[in-house]
Amino acid sequence: MNRVLNFGAGPATLPAEVLEQAREGLLDWQGHGLSVMEMSHRSKEYEAIHGEALAALRRLLAVPEGFAVLLLQGGASLQFAMVPMNLLGAGGSAAGADYLLTGSWSKKALADARRVGSVRVAASTEDEGFTRLPRPDEIDLDPAAAYAHVTSNNTIVGTQWRDLPDAGAVPLAIDASSDILARPVPWERVGVLYAGAQKNLGPAGVTLVVVREDLTARAPEDLPAMLDYRRHAAAGSLYNTPPCWSIYVLGLCCRWVEERGGIAAMERAAEERAAILYDVLDGGGFYRGTAEPASRSRMNVTFRLPTEELERRLLAEAEAAGMIQLKGHRSVGGLRASLYNAMPREGAEALAALLRDFERRNG
Amino acid sequence: MNRVLNFGAGPATLPAEVLEQAREGLLDWQGHGLSVMEMSHRSKEYEAIHGEALAALRRLLAVPEGFAVLLLQGGASLQFAMVPMNLLGAGGSAAGADYLLTGSWSKKALADARRVGSVRVAASTEDEGFTRLPRPDEIDLDPAAAYAHVTSNNTIVGTQWRDLPDAGAVPLAIDASSDILARPVPWERVGVLYAGAQKNLGPAGVTLVVVREDLTARAPEDLPAMLDYRRHAAAGSLYNTPPCWSIYVLGLCCRWVEERGGIAAMERAAEERAAILYDVLDGGGFYRGTAEPASRSRMNVTFRLPTEELERRLLAEAEAAGMIQLKGHRSVGGLRASLYNAMPREGAEALAALLRDFERRNG
Repeated sequence: MNRVLNFGAGPATLPAEVLEQAREGLLDWQGHGLSVMEMSHRSKEYEAIHGEALAALRRLLAVPEGFAVLLLQGGASLQFAMVPMNLLGAGGSAAGADYLLTGSWSKKALADARRVGSVRVAASTEDEGFTRLPRPDEIDLDPAAAYAHVTSNNTIVGTQWRDLPDAGAVPLAIDASSDILARPVPWERVGVLYAGAQKNLGPAGVTLVVVREDLTARAPEDLPAMLDYRRHAAAGSLYNTPPCWSIYVLGLCCRWVEERGGIAAMERAAEERAAILYDVLDGGGFYRGTAEPASRSRMNVTFRLPTEELERRLLAEAEAAGMIQLKGHRSVGGLRASLYNAMPREGAEALAALLRDFERRNG
Repeated sequence: MNRVLNFGAGPATLPAEVLEQAREGLLDWQGHGLSVMEMSHRSKEYEAIHGEALAALRRLLAVPEGFAVLLLQGGASLQFAMVPMNLLGAGGSAAGADYLLTGSWSKKALADARRVGSVRVAASTEDEGFTRLPRPDEIDLDPAAAYAHVTSNNTIVGTQWRDLPDAGAVPLAIDASSDILARPVPWERVGVLYAGAQKNLGPAGVTLVVVREDLTARAPEDLPAMLDYRRHAAAGSLYNTPPCWSIYVLGLCCRWVEERGGIAAMERAAEERAAILYDVLDGGGFYRGTAEPASRSRMNVTFRLPTEELERRLLAEAEAAGMIQLKGHRSVGGLRASLYNAMPREGAEALAALLRDFERRNG
């Protein structure tokens, strides 16, 4: 077995130790004679797995009392609709919600919110290709808004809020899909936080939602069951059959993070991995980072080479050396190295070594 | 390793051969150096897995031209809302939709449809505890309805439509979660068919939807993206990150079914397994089937014993013999043996032998 270094933006690399545990019990989990994939979601075995995953998330993220931790389906994309359906609804503010546009994902969130109710763009850097985040003085928040939506890390251009906006009494709705468990969450500002699992939490198919319970009362009474946070909260995320396997592996990933020091350790490691690559990009004139330095992401390092031909050659060399999924998003071009929690420091070092060598030969 | 016989109603037993294949490639799929759980959903490796799962479903189910085959998230429970949102919507019939109430699941489907639009109960056997299906003369279908909703198999009481209702020009909306791939589908009557995977298709976390494409035009323009069949159909079920692992294992299950003769063979095997148990139930006065014989399910065999004390003892003996998840749903009591495609004939025979022996000792 020869594992590659997977720099994909998501679904992303998972810790080998987690995959080994998942393989170990695949046909016979802890001597119970069946796979987690075959367990009734009402069995005491699965309920323990489920409860432990929820508890681990609450511990790791330091979620305060008064917030419900939910594990749902449909990815962040379904949350683009559920957030306004639940928080903008019948009892919501007449002022609607504020959206901060910082990339393709926040645009999709805005588009769905517009289908549900009244929304407003509070800031946008679209004119500059989203290569930077808005400065505080460029953000025009409505103090009467139902919530203010922000994407904490933007995978495509490679930007990340170092300090999330403070909207005062207006709760933030945070799409944290690509930096969850890699930074602390300022809960005092948060109304709802959501994250698809497939970058930093586990495999695709499960979505974390943490919502301030008092806000869920805003939802209209006639919301379909599966779209209503209250139902999921009341049922402990067992309203219907959950994606058991994805939740199981997410739980193994949470334990892996806890054993390695939790979010503080993950944040330090992310900072170090990213610095290894940004140092190379800033070291000479050969590589050019595509995000403005002050807005740079620790999770997705995006850069261009002098020509597209050189980019193709670098990608081919990386692939031959077992470093995959480095191609940048088609809307930006160039290369993108995604460095989530499961990427070892050695992965960033190996890529940095290749970049330096490639520059020496082609610069 | 000692695998149990899992009679659970879902998530249910999976073929051991499928689990072995999933285990084999768990850290290194076909020498590519990564798990299917780590693959970009835009990679050619995953796209091949995804496309083959969709193609296998189309082949196995003999889905005609003009129908889209979708793999979504949220289970049948989210379809309870998506079916009316898409098919009842702005361009839907003013007459609303007809619902045939045959159990708890069809009641939940009705409740969600009521939250979306105008619906009508076309038949119900709730007064009789759903222990039988409505007779044709008891079904009052509206020829102007947008669709008529039916649950093809009812897991809790153990009833199954042998011949699905014929609503003429009104398309059926079928919840086929618990007998998909175990019977042919009368496509000429169908508008939409949906099924959570975790009984007969694969692991939980993925939902099959097959929808007549012309009907999807009924949906209102402002439906949120993830709730709109048109978006998923146009994107080949890759509008957002799909539940890759669940789809991968579903694909392995489809291949397993194809190698064993497809739906015709699965239907015969289901008939045989169920007959083995119904023969015991009908053999003496000790056991009492809870569904009327003419409405009996081949997938879920439900029965009572003379006393609850005997039921508890039988459950304990079964468990000690490695036969699990035989407890009936709390709303019905007694026992329930679910016999999906992955349950070997030997499983039904082993349970039948235990039932006969238990009757001999306690009858």
